[in-house]
Amino acid sequence: MSEFDLIRTHFAALGSTREDVILGVGDDCALLTVPPGQQLAVSIDTLAAGVHFLPDCDPEALGHKCLAVGLSDLAAMGAAPAWATLALTLPADLPRTSPDWLAAFAHGFGQLALAHGVALVGGDTTRGPLSITVQVHGLIPVGAAVRRAGARAGDLVCVSGTLGDAGLALRALLAGEVPASDLRARLERPTPRVAVGLALRGLASAMIDCSDGLAADLGHILTASGVGAELDLAALPLTGAVAAAVAETGDWGLPLASGDDYELCFCLPAGYRERLAVIAARCGCPLTPIGRVLTGSGLVCRSPAGAVVALDAAGFDHFAAGAR
Amino acid sequence: MSEFDLIRTHFAALGSTREDVILGVGDDCALLTVPPGQQLAVSIDTLAAGVHFLPDCDPEALGHKCLAVGLSDLAAMGAAPAWATLALTLPADLPRTSPDWLAAFAHGFGQLALAHGVALVGGDTTRGPLSITVQVHGLIPVGAAVRRAGARAGDLVCVSGTLGDAGLALRALLAGEVPASDLRARLERPTPRVAVGLALRGLASAMIDCSDGLAADLGHILTASGVGAELDLAALPLTGAVAAAVAETGDWGLPLASGDDYELCFCLPAGYRERLAVIAARCGCPLTPIGRVLTGSGLVCRSPAGAVVALDAAGFDHFAAGAR
Repeated sequence: MSEFDLIRTHFAALGSTREDVILGVGDDCALLTVPPGQQLAVSIDTLAAGVHFLPDCDPEALGHKCLAVGLSDLAAMGAAPAWATLALTLPADLPRTSPDWLAAFAHGFGQLALAHGVALVGGDTTRGPLSITVQVHGLIPVGAAVRRAGARAGDLVCVSGTLGDAGLALRALLAGEVPASDLRARLERPTPRVAVGLALRGLASAMIDCSDGLAADLGHILTASGVGAELDLAALPLTGAVAAAVAETGDWGLPLASGDDYELCFCLPAGYRERLAVIAARCGCPLTPIGRVLTGSGLVCRSPAGAVVALDAAGFDHFAAGAR
Repeated sequence: MSEFDLIRTHFAALGSTREDVILGVGDDCALLTVPPGQQLAVSIDTLAAGVHFLPDCDPEALGHKCLAVGLSDLAAMGAAPAWATLALTLPADLPRTSPDWLAAFAHGFGQLALAHGVALVGGDTTRGPLSITVQVHGLIPVGAAVRRAGARAGDLVCVSGTLGDAGLALRALLAGEVPASDLRARLERPTPRVAVGLALRGLASAMIDCSDGLAADLGHILTASGVGAELDLAALPLTGAVAAAVAETGDWGLPLASGDDYELCFCLPAGYRERLAVIAARCGCPLTPIGRVLTGSGLVCRSPAGAVVALDAAGFDHFAAGAR
C-alpha cells in the first residue's frame, strides 16, 4: 500500500459523501460537477517545514493547518468549501522515525475536512524534505464572490476573532518557551472563518484573510480598491495575553504585523453595522469594527491617545523576509 | 516585485485570453466558470529535484515538463485543458546562482500553456529545496470522460507515439553520458497527447498515460477493469535507438517499465480499429495496436518468437523505488 493509499483510507467515507464528486482519487483525474449558477473558487498553498511550521510540529495539527489555510482563502471570497487535493512531500526516513506520523496527519486533515464537508479528490506523494501543498475548491453563486477591490470610502473596517495570538505563540516557541495552550492552538490549529465568510456575502464590500498580518492584508484591500483607511488601535480585538504584551513593549506589531491569525478582515458599508452582532452570534465568532475606509491611499493607525503610530514592517512576506 | 509577480508577468497576456476566468491571480481565490453540460477534471502533481528531475535540469525544459505532466493526465481522461495553478518552492540562493532561472522556467511553462490555451489562475511561492507542484483543470462533456475501468475482453490495447525513449535518455544521463538530443527532449520536454485524448472520446473504452512505465500503467487499467491482457512485443512502437538497446541486452524493461514517456495507453473496441490511422494522421501522432484485452487478470507479454517474457518490475513507483 502506497503512502497515498494509506492516507486515502482515512478519507474513504468522506469521498463518497458528496454527490458532486463523480470520480475521486484513483484515476488520471478527478471528475467534479459544478452546479448551474455556481462559480468555482480555487486556491493553492504550500506549507514547508522550517518556513511555515517548525520541523517538530505535531502532525495532527499540521494536517489541520494545511487544509485550514486553504479554507480560510475560500472564506475570504465567501465561497462554500467543496473539494481538496493534497500533494505531500515526505522524508524517506519518516516511516522509521515517526511511524504514526501519517495517520496523525491524515486524522487532522480529515477531521477538518469532515467538519466542512470537504471531499479529498486527488493527490500525489513525493519523497523529499517535508512539504505540503493543498488546493481547495469552493462553490459560490455567480456574482456573489467578495473580492478585495470593492471597498469604498465610508465603509467600516472590521475583523473577525482576535489578532496577534498566533504571533505571540510563535514568539514564545522561537524563544524556546512553551506558549499557553490556547495561544499555541491559534498558531497550529487555526479556525478558518468559513461561516463568517458565507454570512458576509452580499454585505461586505471587500474581504481578505489575515495570513501575513492585518496591516499587510488590509493593505492589499486598500490597494486593490484604490482607497485608504484609518485604524483605531484601541478598537483592535485582543486577548488578554496580547494586550499585555502590547502594553509591556509599546509595540503594536504583534496584532498588526504578525501572520497566521487567519481571521477575516472585511469592509462593510456603515449601514450594515447593526448586522454585525447578529452574524457574530450566529457564527459564534466576534466581529469587530476597527476603523474606517477613507478616500486617498495608505493606512493610518491611531493609538488610544490619538497619536499616529508608524508601522515598521508591512506584515510578513514569506519570500522577502527571512525564514521563520 | 515578488517571485510570483515575476512569473505572472510572463502570463499576463495569457490569463486574459479565456472568458471563463472571471478572476485570475491576485485575490484570495481565482473565480472560474464551468459551462453547463461540462464536468471539471483536475489532477495535481509534484516534481521534486533529485526525484523527478536532475538538479541541473534546464529550467526552460522543467517549466515545460511540470505542466506537460498535468496536461498528460487531462489527455488520459479525454479532457480539454483550461486552467493551471502553480506552487513553486525555490532555493533561497537561486536568484544569485541562476539569475535567469525563473524567466527561463516561466518561458517553458508559458509556451506550453499558450499552445494549449491554458490560463495560469493561481499560485504560491515558498523558499526551500527546488520543487514544483502543478494542478491542472480541464473540461469534459458530462459522461464523456474515458476512465481506467472500461476495458473489455476483445478490445485492442493501443499506445501513442514510441516507448522507452525517455528511459534511454535517463539511463545515459545517470551513466554520465550525453544522450542524443531527440531522446533527451523526450525525457525533459514530453509532449502531452492532448489532441489524441480528445479524439478518443467516445471510442476508447479505457485510457491512462504512461508516466510510470507501460506495464505498470496498463496494469492499472486491467485491475480497474477486471480484465487481463496480452502484449505482442514485436508490435511495440520503438525508435531505432530503443530497438537497438533491446536487441543488444535482450531486456524489454526499457519500453515496458521505464517511466516518463507520457504516451497514452488505451483500449479500443476492435470495431474501431480502422479509425486509428485517421486519428493518428489528424493528430500527427502514431497510434499502434500492441495487444489484446483478455478475460481473467494479469499481463502476459509475448516475444517476437512467441515466448512468454517475464517482467522483473511492474514499472516505476516514485515512492517505493529509490530516488532517481
